Amino acid sequence: MYVDSLLCTPLEKERRDHRPALEEIAKGRVGCITVTVGFWEDATESMDQLVKWRYMAEDNADLVEIAYTADDITRIAASGRCAILLGFQNVAFLQGRLGYVEHFARMGTRVGQLTYNIQSDIGGSCYEPSDSGLTRYGKYVVREMNRCGMVVDLSHVGNTTTMDAIRHSTEPVAITHSNPSSLAPHARNKPDDVLDALKDNGGVIGLSVYRNIVGEYTTAQKWSELVAWTADRIGVDHIGIGTDFDQTGGMDYLEWMRQGRWAREIQYGAGSKSNSGPQPKLGWFDDPSQFPDAEACLRDRGFDETEVAKIMGGNWLDFYRRTFKAL
Amino acid sequence: MYVDSLLCTPLEKERRDHRPALEEIAKGRVGCITVTVGFWEDATESMDQLVKWRYMAEDNADLVEIAYTADDITRIAASGRCAILLGFQNVAFLQGRLGYVEHFARMGTRVGQLTYNIQSDIGGSCYEPSDSGLTRYGKYVVREMNRCGMVVDLSHVGNTTTMDAIRHSTEPVAITHSNPSSLAPHARNKPDDVLDALKDNGGVIGLSVYRNIVGEYTTAQKWSELVAWTADRIGVDHIGIGTDFDQTGGMDYLEWMRQGRWAREIQYGAGSKSNSGPQPKLGWFDDPSQFPDAEACLRDRGFDETEVAKIMGGNWLDFYRRTFKAL
Repeated sequence: MYVDSLLCTPLEKERRDHRPALEEIAKGRVGCITVTVGFWEDATESMDQLVKWRYMAEDNADLVEIAYTADDITRIAASGRCAILLGFQNVAFLQGRLGYVEHFARMGTRVGQLTYNIQSDIGGSCYEPSDSGLTRYGKYVVREMNRCGMVVDLSHVGNTTTMDAIRHSTEPVAITHSNPSSLAPHARNKPDDVLDALKDNGGVIGLSVYRNIVGEYTTAQKWSELVAWTADRIGVDHIGIGTDFDQTGGMDYLEWMRQGRWAREIQYGAGSKSNSGPQPKLGWFDDPSQFPDAEACLRDRGFDETEVAKIMGGNWLDFYRRTFKAL
Repeated sequence: MYVDSLLCTPLEKERRDHRPALEEIAKGRVGCITVTVGFWEDATESMDQLVKWRYMAEDNADLVEIAYTADDITRIAASGRCAILLGFQNVAFLQGRLGYVEHFARMGTRVGQLTYNIQSDIGGSCYEPSDSGLTRYGKYVVREMNRCGMVVDLSHVGNTTTMDAIRHSTEPVAITHSNPSSLAPHARNKPDDVLDALKDNGGVIGLSVYRNIVGEYTTAQKWSELVAWTADRIGVDHIGIGTDFDQTGGMDYLEWMRQGRWAREIQYGAGSKSNSGPQPKLGWFDDPSQFPDAEACLRDRGFDETEVAKIMGGNWLDFYRRTFKAL
């Protein structure tokens, strides 16, 4: 089964136009996708977002269904549809309340990234000039997420906070959409010590094909080299795919993502002033319909069938089985 | 005129019982007090708190009135009543929105402390093990507070973030309720380099009589020594009084203040596990009615009349004239 640990497409927003994006997912036979329900939305706004995603799934029940458990994922995928895991690229939905972790877990949130692009009360972001590490509140949040079976996602999180969170978590953690910074130097990518700690923790990293964070590893051949390097470093059991695809790529959405309500001056996120718009795709794995092409490129690299199955989705499914919990 | 740059009493809450506290203020002939409208309240909750303070002031118009300008303060004090400045010991009311600085300034908020007892998206707290310094968002907020005439208060803020904020602010800043840590070592107090930077910035520190942060300077004689030491260090023009009085001192309020909604485990703030309750007062300057006693102790220390007038309120009034702005 193919699993994408991070899709960025705002499928809930354009309720008339999301059908083509869902059809791309169906065409790629993707069995499970963690979607981005929100970035900067606070508690009520996040609850509204969750409703929009639920409605979207209900309206397109022939193609997708929201999964709340690992068994849901296998059942939905077996029916030929895609299981949607509700995830957030921030935990702004907590609005400073430790007690909201359980609320949002009960509402179906299965993945929460500890920070997005700026510092929060939880810890430091990969883009913040100075990373505080995981705060006292952040430590409570990680343990509460562990208790509630909400996956701790460390993409976009600063390296010091990432290491602290890996050490503090009693459950395996996820890096849903990043690459190794040894190969592709970028604030969004992870250095070797973080990858090694992730391995020791039993976690999984979703390797990404977002142009700004692949460095020179843009072709299928080069990208499979990046996958192979990572497998050599931390073992094939700790690797998955987290595309970071935005299938619609609107500038308004990009701006919301990058600066929320915290800046008036333009922020560039993983881009830069001279490279500020939606990024051109790589040309071979450009939307979810091309998951079979990604699989083929791993075979070409020499991974055997077991390894390919693990990387393309098996590791994430196993990870979800280990980390999701019934409340 | 006597000015208290930080009162902690939750006068808005017990609407039947606040009259005695207001009468203590009247008895002390205090002309202006910055109150604590909130700590952890987000935008809507903070707006609700502002309403409660407005209602309280309207219901007790014989004793207090909310001041929006420095002229309001002198007019209200001249009428024999106390001018209330609306301040928050956090900027949680922004809820991550840069644009809310102007909203809250227009609603009458004149003082905003950059952090309370934990890290935020703005910067590090004095109690956070690691202080990030002022964040990118924090820099925008400081400049926006400068533009809107909302006083940047750096009490409870970590030292690195405090120094960053002093450097980044284009306006004089306030430390409304802290003491020098050279004399009274405590995370809540400020080291000499911060005091020196405050002087250079044209700011004012409100020296406090809260037991946990006065160290050994508990008697009137000792406390006036602390005032004299600070005057020697940074000059008499940069010193005022910020009592940190809580006249009602309920345990429920103390718990809200110390842990808000970010922890379940008990937090002790400026106290400790073995010293967790409301603190005993010093025995000579225990509520606002004793402002004349504080004045007397400064005279006994040898400050001349001009100096006494500056420390007891003149410096704060001058500071408000320099920093408040009409929008």
